[in-house]
Amino acid sequence: MKVIGIDPGSHITGYGVVEKTGARLVCIASGAIETDTALPLESRLCAIFAGINEVISAHAPETAAIEAVFYAKNVKSAVALSHARGVALLASSLASLGVHEYSPRSVKLATVGYGNATKEQVRVMVSRILNMPEPRIQDAADALAVAVCHLNTWRPCAAMRGHAAGQR
Amino acid sequence: MKVIGIDPGSHITGYGVVEKTGARLVCIASGAIETDTALPLESRLCAIFAGINEVISAHAPETAAIEAVFYAKNVKSAVALSHARGVALLASSLASLGVHEYSPRSVKLATVGYGNATKEQVRVMVSRILNMPEPRIQDAADALAVAVCHLNTWRPCAAMRGHAAGQR
Repeated sequence: MKVIGIDPGSHITGYGVVEKTGARLVCIASGAIETDTALPLESRLCAIFAGINEVISAHAPETAAIEAVFYAKNVKSAVALSHARGVALLASSLASLGVHEYSPRSVKLATVGYGNATKEQVRVMVSRILNMPEPRIQDAADALAVAVCHLNTWRPCAAMRGHAAGQR
Repeated sequence: MKVIGIDPGSHITGYGVVEKTGARLVCIASGAIETDTALPLESRLCAIFAGINEVISAHAPETAAIEAVFYAKNVKSAVALSHARGVALLASSLASLGVHEYSPRSVKLATVGYGNATKEQVRVMVSRILNMPEPRIQDAADALAVAVCHLNTWRPCAAMRGHAAGQR
């Protein structure tokens, strides 16, 4: 089971591809699509779309896991993030990936075991869970954390019985 | 000069293609892409992307005009709108259209002559300016209004002199 985690942003969009074999989680690829903030938004969205398409086509994940928008954030930043998030959801859906959304709190719970964990704690735990060096880019660590959250919490049987609604 | 005006929304995305010949503005096409709110957001974004691509490919506008996000709106609706808006900007940019954004106030000023005009007034004025029956779909009327706003206010020479920043 291979999942692409995406942490969208109009400036930096993190991604992380994680594969689960038995109980073992392995990072296949991770990184960030950085866009030039001097460019107009539509050009940056094209770069994000192209970047996600490239990662999906290189690693062929079956599923995309993406953080839900945290409304308590600054409205302006939530709006900018949502433009990038729309493009990330579109790229995933056009590639026929199943799409799952997780709240920031669920991601922290699934990786650190504590819903109010810091970004630093998420980064450390992601490196332990995936048995890899700490990702240097925070957005890549966050994307890996969403992928880990999906792989460790999603239950296809429960989803088939219609109990998956709470995950969106 | 042919412009596609877009009024994005995660439920209904209005569009209107307007052509300027001399001082005359003519509506070439207008309508709305309505998505099924029972579907997940990513499927609705695919429908919006496909719909805008279809209109662009059928009518070949050179430019897209799109409303800026009005932050004073409900945060949740601004976030939902921004997902659709990201996809609309992406579709326009991938089709190599020039993209211009206008505030709701500029659109009302350019069509009704009054920045706090009602939606009803915008609809009536759009039908008079374009010499056509009142659009029955408000989102289509709003999209036509953005296209009219662009055609009646954009000055390429000013833009070339670097004075267009205020329009974004």
